[in-house]
Amino acid sequence: MSAVPMNFESQPLDMNLWSQNHLARVEQALSQWVGDGAPAGLGDAMRYAVLDGGKRLRPLLVLAAYEAVCSGAPASAVVDDAALRAGLGEAALRAACAVELIHAYSLVHDDMPCMDNDVLRRGKPTVHVVFGEAQAMLAGDAMQALAFEVLTPDAGEGAGVPADLQARLVRILARASGQAGMAGGQAIDLASVGQALDEATLRDMHRRKTGALLRASVQMGAACGGLQADCVAWQALTAYGHAMGLAFQIVDDVLDATQPSDTLGKTAGKDADANKPTYVSLLGLDGARQEADALLAQALSALSRSGLADAALQPLSDLAHRIVHRDH
Amino acid sequence: MSAVPMNFESQPLDMNLWSQNHLARVEQALSQWVGDGAPAGLGDAMRYAVLDGGKRLRPLLVLAAYEAVCSGAPASAVVDDAALRAGLGEAALRAACAVELIHAYSLVHDDMPCMDNDVLRRGKPTVHVVFGEAQAMLAGDAMQALAFEVLTPDAGEGAGVPADLQARLVRILARASGQAGMAGGQAIDLASVGQALDEATLRDMHRRKTGALLRASVQMGAACGGLQADCVAWQALTAYGHAMGLAFQIVDDVLDATQPSDTLGKTAGKDADANKPTYVSLLGLDGARQEADALLAQALSALSRSGLADAALQPLSDLAHRIVHRDH
Repeated sequence: MSAVPMNFESQPLDMNLWSQNHLARVEQALSQWVGDGAPAGLGDAMRYAVLDGGKRLRPLLVLAAYEAVCSGAPASAVVDDAALRAGLGEAALRAACAVELIHAYSLVHDDMPCMDNDVLRRGKPTVHVVFGEAQAMLAGDAMQALAFEVLTPDAGEGAGVPADLQARLVRILARASGQAGMAGGQAIDLASVGQALDEATLRDMHRRKTGALLRASVQMGAACGGLQADCVAWQALTAYGHAMGLAFQIVDDVLDATQPSDTLGKTAGKDADANKPTYVSLLGLDGARQEADALLAQALSALSRSGLADAALQPLSDLAHRIVHRDH
Repeated sequence: MSAVPMNFESQPLDMNLWSQNHLARVEQALSQWVGDGAPAGLGDAMRYAVLDGGKRLRPLLVLAAYEAVCSGAPASAVVDDAALRAGLGEAALRAACAVELIHAYSLVHDDMPCMDNDVLRRGKPTVHVVFGEAQAMLAGDAMQALAFEVLTPDAGEGAGVPADLQARLVRILARASGQAGMAGGQAIDLASVGQALDEATLRDMHRRKTGALLRASVQMGAACGGLQADCVAWQALTAYGHAMGLAFQIVDDVLDATQPSDTLGKTAGKDADANKPTYVSLLGLDGARQEADALLAQALSALSRSGLADAALQPLSDLAHRIVHRDH
């Protein structure tokens, strides 16, 4: 399960193949960990919530950022020690799974009747519809804990992820998902129904609710690649993650307003129905699309000033295009 | 905020004073962290759920185990480096707060209408009654994330908790609270309503639901004191934690069956009303009390074979008596 960086020098990367390979590794790892040791009902609910579903955008961002640093850093920064290199690859895979677990738990809780009361997600009935509300809440709770379990293997598990990297990954992920991050953003969202939010508040909400976890994905990958938090490449990748976090939400709002439910795999038009403020209600459809394009340009510009080799940045660049130009 | 071990040699410890001092430190630290950076509504719900309430048994177990190791280990094992010692004390305080955050989040979610539907906790209306179900669910989610934030301070925060200790504490706490631990136990509980559980299943449920977190409290304290997982003292403290976990739940069942709500600060007799299996329904009142006393004896016996100095074990010994002989 170690992540061997691909050889970017030889030929342009086939991004479909790249995604397929990486998604298969993530799916395999998740299916090994999710529900392991859980009583039957809880394990079933967790597997239903996590496996075989979703675009896995956050795991791909982790792995793309990791490989950008591994393959794209100056030769002097390359890790010589094979065991350490295997440990870093293992860490990147674990980080990819952990961030998906946090994302998936937030969807389970978000869909519950006391929150968005949604019955459709990823084209399937939501977890509480299938397993009941109590089991859905517990499954979400256990998925959050599992994210932090996955990040902290002991010496007998995995390929020896360095302890300081384990602690750093937990630090990044917990902050991004907690009171000042994702959960905080959801609380602002909750309070905003029927309110006229100004643009600054809307941006703050989305910076926390969606943006924090997307940015954390990029940072976790970069941390697995060995980047220190104060270097130029770290700051450039963080700026990329920040722009992508905003762009993702803007495109989400555009799709919610323009696509039917069966394309989205979830109930469309809910935000407008709930009189929730969105980028579309604030900027209009055209304005929102222009803003997403501007953020794409910002993200690509950030990559170009990272100091990492162009070829190694191809997956991150491709993911940025996919985020902005997706249709569901 | 460093935890300076008290001088156990000079005179018997005043355990009321010991508890008061340690509870004040935990309360002060929690009040600094809970809600920090959260939007107003979420922060209010979190503070309501965590601050000024509860017996804080788990934090006291963390700190008692930490001090037992710091003060009671052979002189050769004592940490000479003052900065490292301060870092370990800081880690113990953080571990104490983290385990309380996990415990408090589980109560918030447990009390919700889709779970136990309880309106009274620690003598106050439950979180969802005051703040609504959506905010209660989010507050619980954010409290779980905060537990892991608190365990992973960066270099600029706190007194320099070593990275390997940070990772180890996350590992212990995440496993104890997740799919194979607390959340798993709650799922068994959920499935058990109206079922005739045998004693083995009841014990398995409580080992996960309550026992795992109590045992983790002792282990986290021991880890902060520097104990390796394979040594005699670690195994003895783990056995102590295991016995206390079971005893706690048995006494809980006895109190639920015998004490009025205003003494407990929560709704009494709910388990029997819900036809839930309990130690009292399984063993009878007298049998349950005898079992609790036997577990107390086991716990004290485990302490005595830990190899730690008797005087240093006094807080753990006192907490064991308090757990078994409490009246609420």
